[in-house]
Amino acid sequence: MALTGVLRPGHVALRVLELEPALKHYTEVLGLIETARDDKGRVYLKAWDEHDHHSVVLREADSPGMDYMGFRVDSGRTLEWLAQEVEQSGLASDFQWIPAGEHPRTGVRFRFTIPTGHAIELFADKDKLGCLTGDSNPDPWPDDLRGMAPSRFDHCLLYGDDLDGTVRLFRDVLGFTLAEEVVAGPGKMMIGAFLTCSNKAHDIAFIRHAEKNKFHHASFNLDNWGEVLKAADIISKKDVSLDIGPTRHGITRGATIYFFDPSGNRNEVFSGGYIHYPDKPTITWTDNELGKAIFYHDRKLNDAFLNVLT
Amino acid sequence: MALTGVLRPGHVALRVLELEPALKHYTEVLGLIETARDDKGRVYLKAWDEHDHHSVVLREADSPGMDYMGFRVDSGRTLEWLAQEVEQSGLASDFQWIPAGEHPRTGVRFRFTIPTGHAIELFADKDKLGCLTGDSNPDPWPDDLRGMAPSRFDHCLLYGDDLDGTVRLFRDVLGFTLAEEVVAGPGKMMIGAFLTCSNKAHDIAFIRHAEKNKFHHASFNLDNWGEVLKAADIISKKDVSLDIGPTRHGITRGATIYFFDPSGNRNEVFSGGYIHYPDKPTITWTDNELGKAIFYHDRKLNDAFLNVLT
Amino acid sequence: MALTGVLRPGHVALRVLELEPALKHYTEVLGLIETARDDKGRVYLKAWDEHDHHSVVLREADSPGMDYMGFRVDSGRTLEWLAQEVEQSGLASDFQWIPAGEHPRTGVRFRFTIPTGHAIELFADKDKLGCLTGDSNPDPWPDDLRGMAPSRFDHCLLYGDDLDGTVRLFRDVLGFTLAEEVVAGPGKMMIGAFLTCSNKAHDIAFIRHAEKNKFHHASFNLDNWGEVLKAADIISKKDVSLDIGPTRHGITRGATIYFFDPSGNRNEVFSGGYIHYPDKPTITWTDNELGKAIFYHDRKLNDAFLNVLT
Amino acid sequence: MALTGVLRPGHVALRVLELEPALKHYTEVLGLIETARDDKGRVYLKAWDEHDHHSVVLREADSPGMDYMGFRVDSGRTLEWLAQEVEQSGLASDFQWIPAGEHPRTGVRFRFTIPTGHAIELFADKDKLGCLTGDSNPDPWPDDLRGMAPSRFDHCLLYGDDLDGTVRLFRDVLGFTLAEEVVAGPGKMMIGAFLTCSNKAHDIAFIRHAEKNKFHHASFNLDNWGEVLKAADIISKKDVSLDIGPTRHGITRGATIYFFDPSGNRNEVFSGGYIHYPDKPTITWTDNELGKAIFYHDRKLNDAFLNVLT
Repeated sequence: MALTGVLRPGHVALRVLELEPALKHYTEVLGLIETARDDKGRVYLKAWDEHDHHSVVLREADSPGMDYMGFRVDSGRTLEWLAQEVEQSGLASDFQWIPAGEHPRTGVRFRFTIPTGHAIELFADKDKLGCLTGDSNPDPWPDDLRGMAPSRFDHCLLYGDDLDGTVRLFRDVLGFTLAEEVVAGPGKMMIGAFLTCSNKAHDIAFIRHAEKNKFHHASFNLDNWGEVLKAADIISKKDVSLDIGPTRHGITRGATIYFFDPSGNRNEVFSGGYIHYPDKPTITWTDNELGKAIFYHDRKLNDAFLNVLT
Repeated sequence: MALTGVLRPGHVALRVLELEPALKHYTEVLGLIETARDDKGRVYLKAWDEHDHHSVVLREADSPGMDYMGFRVDSGRTLEWLAQEVEQSGLASDFQWIPAGEHPRTGVRFRFTIPTGHAIELFADKDKLGCLTGDSNPDPWPDDLRGMAPSRFDHCLLYGDDLDGTVRLFRDVLGFTLAEEVVAGPGKMMIGAFLTCSNKAHDIAFIRHAEKNKFHHASFNLDNWGEVLKAADIISKKDVSLDIGPTRHGITRGATIYFFDPSGNRNEVFSGGYIHYPDKPTITWTDNELGKAIFYHDRKLNDAFLNVLT
Repeated sequence: MALTGVLRPGHVALRVLELEPALKHYTEVLGLIETARDDKGRVYLKAWDEHDHHSVVLREADSPGMDYMGFRVDSGRTLEWLAQEVEQSGLASDFQWIPAGEHPRTGVRFRFTIPTGHAIELFADKDKLGCLTGDSNPDPWPDDLRGMAPSRFDHCLLYGDDLDGTVRLFRDVLGFTLAEEVVAGPGKMMIGAFLTCSNKAHDIAFIRHAEKNKFHHASFNLDNWGEVLKAADIISKKDVSLDIGPTRHGITRGATIYFFDPSGNRNEVFSGGYIHYPDKPTITWTDNELGKAIFYHDRKLNDAFLNVLT
Repeated sequence: MALTGVLRPGHVALRVLELEPALKHYTEVLGLIETARDDKGRVYLKAWDEHDHHSVVLREADSPGMDYMGFRVDSGRTLEWLAQEVEQSGLASDFQWIPAGEHPRTGVRFRFTIPTGHAIELFADKDKLGCLTGDSNPDPWPDDLRGMAPSRFDHCLLYGDDLDGTVRLFRDVLGFTLAEEVVAGPGKMMIGAFLTCSNKAHDIAFIRHAEKNKFHHASFNLDNWGEVLKAADIISKKDVSLDIGPTRHGITRGATIYFFDPSGNRNEVFSGGYIHYPDKPTITWTDNELGKAIFYHDRKLNDAFLNVLT
């Protein structure tokens, strides 16, 4: 009851060209905490306010990008049932059960490929390390944070071709609602979809794009607009490659800044937005206001934002 | 799936001694919007970012306080099923179906009395007026807001005797989770319970108290700590009675200020807090840290906060 | 003693192509208050926290730009003495005494042309209307502000050729100090100068530029970074032409946003910066860090910012 | 010209009961930087954005309180001239020239006792260590700040009997202006005076009080209201004794929080306020609004704030 089924984005697995500069970026610039390494050389990280063992997984590879994104569901029973629903939906392929322990301290994961070509996982079990402030008489924030220090991994934006199929899968099978959409042309074709399984404005988002399985960004949550300025300053102090910001999205109202990890994977830190409910009407953006939808202040799209993908 | 069952606090019905000063307070100081009056003299209001027809109901009476608080559920089917569950739980009494239309543009409501003596309602239907920014290419905030201009009615804090029974009802029957609790004494008796049906840190909260059916405050959501300062300034500019703040709660981490409407009903406006999930461990506060739990900066309770109830 | 001589930027006189759209911009978008019109059709405005009768003067003309900028000095005696010093400096020309009353409720003004070609005025008397919160038991801010509602006109940035001469005039004759400078090339030629007569990081600034007497922007003071976001939102809500921002300057540390009035004159609203003292060492920016100096986050100059002048 | 004579509060010398807990407080809680110790056991500290060698001097003593407060003047010539003016004013006593080097890297200081009984110093020379961001292509803030990390020592509030004499000395001899005053009773007797030698709302302030030479607080500057919340959180995280806040002063508009060092000396960190000019009318607070003047939100004085002095 209340919050059931798919609970939240649980992890994003990213490929980086060189592990050490990437780790330096994710721990010192972004400010995540390393929690484990495995025998395949993967590094596991979490944000300070997350309880689960990890939310970001890095591995060295020849090209950057996203391997897969995983969602935590509320129970093993839900995992089995949703796996079955996904298999039977006709909207996914490449079904695979990853055994428990393949991610450290994590139970079995059900992996599948969605119509836009991305690998998505569902899982029900991951050990809780606890957040840095603890669960007994906690302070509001911990000491010794580094970098931007987001509280949580929040969502990903992914690009791919069969947007309609992916949206159908998330809405009809996985129980997400469509918080916002961008439509274009006389036929009002959906070109952007912002989907949520929670009170957040988005837990995953997609843009229609000719190529399958492209990664736009992984986003992390900051507390407020002042933290966005601090993040912007850190980007310059540490000579990180900036994409755009500080600014505001029309979509979701979030205050935001985009930048790149040393391998060219885009990161976002953002704050704000409304409280979503499943009975809230979907917000629709039309292509004549597309600039405002994406960057509310500039009101125009920049090429890098649209075309630099990994 | 995802967000189901009880969705959110839908309305709070408050008694005020004189309607006009109360209305002036709720529209000009707090900054709600009047949406209707009915033939019983009740006035209905909503916050600017709410879609539903109303979230606050005021009626003139001889004593201040809360008549009832209502929660929106996801469907008529859920309403029927939860009504049955509540009736069969042995944890509630005074069951009553309020006919559709008794609140304007609102469906049937199922009302019951909980162990702490408060009247709680469930309902599935209330017309959507839409939020002030609309659902098509919306701006992030509307023009012509007045006063503190919270985005939403957020939660109530209620005082009553049978805290255990009420918590059991909300957790076991209505599907809430216990985000935080305060325990006291060698037996670690629960004296405070902060319950949520969403990703918010609380949707309703209770303090153990000798007398049944007491109202502590109705709370409204602000965007950030700067808005809390603006609210504090408005309280002084408009000679409103201040309770305490600006400050921070240890419980929920929220930044907050408390004040009174002209009838002595306490209001809160607040911002911030973490993102709750049902699998997040309950935070426990012990009585030796009670001051910090309630007012993180002062670290001591003030008498008015504890004992002024309506 | 303490604060003497030239006290502050007192007014900027701007040419606009059409008066009514300009007025709408300066009163509804920027949020200045109209205080007078004169028989030449000029309109006088002030910001809410200013005491003097006006700080912005608008007149209709065939081309946009700045007619002159005036500085208030501490007394009539100082005015006479500084006028004499300016005349004898060999660094200015076109000396002119504007009679009292030519600006409403303003005393005589001494006007001269500086080496970069701009007309600068000194004056000692302008009637005080008082700020909107008054001088007796004042509230911290007034009701009924509109638009961005800056507290004060703060400074101008001007472009012109003989930067060295202008800097010499402001430092050696008018008593300003050089808070920050940008130097370029092997000879470390000064290409930007940020001058102050107060504890502010700048009261007037100049960029070396081939053409004389160009106007880059007039700047107005906001309270904080949250107000900069509000200003950015207003720019989009009211379809104002944005130049760049929200961002931060390396120079002065200010958080800022730039936009254009309907005639193409650039405005800035900003907040923050350090407290300057005359014995504080001048901060030097070198051309290899020029991008960071101007826009600390983007770290690159945009063409519009450099070349769109009026 | 422009900024002359007395430039700024240069140092405050405080007595503490035990040096090590005091140092821990001033470096880890407040976040000042130790710059020197001398052979008398005194410790010298500065804030990160200050250039001068020190702004706070601590020495161990049997009772807490302030030994003296020093102001930097613009030159040795001004120092000699002001010393003479102070001696001849009939408003001061106990004249003393402290030799250069008595404070490390500091020139001669002229010390005198003002009518409220406090020892005040003037000095013209103190070596510049530079601020932590440097003077060449500086970042807006340095890494590795600790605690509240104010940018500067800002002012002191002192209590004493002959308020009129002290105000006359600061205004007529030292060139300060009276930014704000509190008056009481039918005769409108001045009971509080907020004096400035700069664009800041106050550089020193006095409250009329029966006893001579009492110290209320030393105040340090924060960037914004968000930093005030951070300071409040640090006070609780580090179990520092809180006086009051976060709140706002009516006087000066500053957002503020007060707390005590381990010896009972009161500290303030604050942000905001207006830009003062010497021709700005003095703001007057009347005793019927005294609560609002001091604590704009509470609108009542707390006993500790009025009577706990060192």
